[in-house]
Amino acid sequence: MMERVYNFSPGPSMLPLPVLEQVHKELLCYGDTGTSVMEMSHRSKMYLEIFDASVAALRALMHIPDTYEVLMLQGGATQQFSAVPLNLLTASGSADYVDSGNFAHLAAKEAERYGAVRVVASSRNEQYRFIPALHTQVFDPKADYFHITTNNTIYGTRYAKLPDTGDVPLVADMSSNILSEVYDVGKFGVIYAGAQKNIGPAGLCVVIVRKDLLGRANQLCPRLLNWQVQAETGSMHNTPNTFAIYVAKLGFEWLLNRGGVEAMEQVNIEKASILYNCLDQSKLFKGTALPSDRSRMNVTFVTGDEAKDDAFIKFAAKAGLINLKGHRSVGGMRASIYNAMPVDGVRALAACMKDFEAQNA
Amino acid sequence: MMERVYNFSPGPSMLPLPVLEQVHKELLCYGDTGTSVMEMSHRSKMYLEIFDASVAALRALMHIPDTYEVLMLQGGATQQFSAVPLNLLTASGSADYVDSGNFAHLAAKEAERYGAVRVVASSRNEQYRFIPALHTQVFDPKADYFHITTNNTIYGTRYAKLPDTGDVPLVADMSSNILSEVYDVGKFGVIYAGAQKNIGPAGLCVVIVRKDLLGRANQLCPRLLNWQVQAETGSMHNTPNTFAIYVAKLGFEWLLNRGGVEAMEQVNIEKASILYNCLDQSKLFKGTALPSDRSRMNVTFVTGDEAKDDAFIKFAAKAGLINLKGHRSVGGMRASIYNAMPVDGVRALAACMKDFEAQNA
Repeated sequence: MMERVYNFSPGPSMLPLPVLEQVHKELLCYGDTGTSVMEMSHRSKMYLEIFDASVAALRALMHIPDTYEVLMLQGGATQQFSAVPLNLLTASGSADYVDSGNFAHLAAKEAERYGAVRVVASSRNEQYRFIPALHTQVFDPKADYFHITTNNTIYGTRYAKLPDTGDVPLVADMSSNILSEVYDVGKFGVIYAGAQKNIGPAGLCVVIVRKDLLGRANQLCPRLLNWQVQAETGSMHNTPNTFAIYVAKLGFEWLLNRGGVEAMEQVNIEKASILYNCLDQSKLFKGTALPSDRSRMNVTFVTGDEAKDDAFIKFAAKAGLINLKGHRSVGGMRASIYNAMPVDGVRALAACMKDFEAQNA
Repeated sequence: MMERVYNFSPGPSMLPLPVLEQVHKELLCYGDTGTSVMEMSHRSKMYLEIFDASVAALRALMHIPDTYEVLMLQGGATQQFSAVPLNLLTASGSADYVDSGNFAHLAAKEAERYGAVRVVASSRNEQYRFIPALHTQVFDPKADYFHITTNNTIYGTRYAKLPDTGDVPLVADMSSNILSEVYDVGKFGVIYAGAQKNIGPAGLCVVIVRKDLLGRANQLCPRLLNWQVQAETGSMHNTPNTFAIYVAKLGFEWLLNRGGVEAMEQVNIEKASILYNCLDQSKLFKGTALPSDRSRMNVTFVTGDEAKDDAFIKFAAKAGLINLKGHRSVGGMRASIYNAMPVDGVRALAACMKDFEAQNA
């Protein structure tokens, strides 16, 4: 077997090696069941134990109150771009969105098809280099909800502070930084997150929804997108992504064993600091995000010279540091350093940047 | 490791052992990539090779003409219960449905939310023991489509002959018998199938759609459910279920190596015959489906005595034959014998039935 590489992909991305090793160990036969998890009926006792343990571990990690449902759905966060308005945009028919990046923009565009969408703040014209300033006086107190994207994968930005939306439910796409830092779930109406960055394999979306927000769906909401239907059936209105939920469970347990989100947040601050310190000291590499809004999960940087960017990406790949190419809309480099990326991987990248700079001074 | 059992679950169900062994072999490191397939970006070259090979293998197996798109979507067949009317129920606004079982019924119920649904034939009042007679003179020649369920998992029935719907596109939920017998794809407008019975792990739905049927979607169709959007983005409007598509690829290749669907159909006829012969010769066990419409995938039977049914299910489980309990709406037993179930597993079940009958005469 080839040596494992450090994979800085924005998602799907690295999984913790102990998780992969556990999956490997029980792939052909789970416990004494004589079957693979992939072969288990989703309604069988053996599988329901896995499912329930997965939800319980996520509840423990995020300290999710009993007043919230935890749904394990298919379709990824993009499906929730439709599901959010189909489930919630039904009273005043108007919602507030913050346009802080590409996915935030797409979420608002999709919601516009189902009601009135007010973009209350945007950094689109500044290449999304920062989280736009939020002035509560422009928020609509009658909005059905207020939508944010807590971390912007492509642009490497993160909300340092959550907006105060009063009684308007705060709905957050947390795909790229869920479980990476402590959030008070009680401050949100809905949190949703595609799994393929900080949870597990692609094809799974976690939706955490305050129970009083159920039962408001648009008449035309497809049944499978209706949170109330999924809550009533324990996320099993139809067969869920059983295998991804199992791998997610192992990931949740790995995180609990490491001290939970509280401990992981400290590691993530350290990891991000290593790279941002490296950028701030470099004469070659420059970070693209405003320092106050820098993401801890996605570190974006450029040399200012496309040929040098390409040369660095190749140089890093030779050292086993792969998928550092930035998104086409930003260019340059992006290092995605989710929970599963070890500190050693980040140190290796920083060392590689210094080596490259020394050779290209 | 415990010995593998014969798993007669209706789905998720058995996967071919060589497929599981291949997954096991490359789980920690795929080829020389240094990563697991679960960790690969869906837009990376290494993953796109897997994706393209998966679609190509399915095209080869089913001889899918170039005039059809093959989509690899999330949400399972149940999501297509909504997607079918949202994509197609837009011209006359009326569709014909055949009510041949529980899932057929649910498909029609969901479609009713988006337009006029005519149930042109039903066996609901006869416990779905057969495929209802189809009289073409009652078909609506102006219907946007005509919907059938080619195999009814719960009731153990199968269309022995497809209806002739003329110019009206035939839309088929083929979840429980896709790849089990030869179908002429050219006779269908749309074929869809959840993966977890005859394709691979749960969380994946294959949609095969004639290209001229794209572009008709309802204005309120969620983008991710819009077949045209998915066709234009190669099933990657967002991150697909990358791992399930990879396991499906291995399953497709396994089937190609065994002679394709043509060869598998002969094996399936043999497997079903072993069990139906056993039922027809038994004084204890009785099949529940009308013989002319018997499924080759799901064999449903009862003793007529619930206590004896339970005793048999336990007797079989002790012999390593698991998940034989029938659906609660039918009771008794159901043996799901998809492609991955070896002939030996079916022989073992027949032998077990004879043993039980001898001991309970």
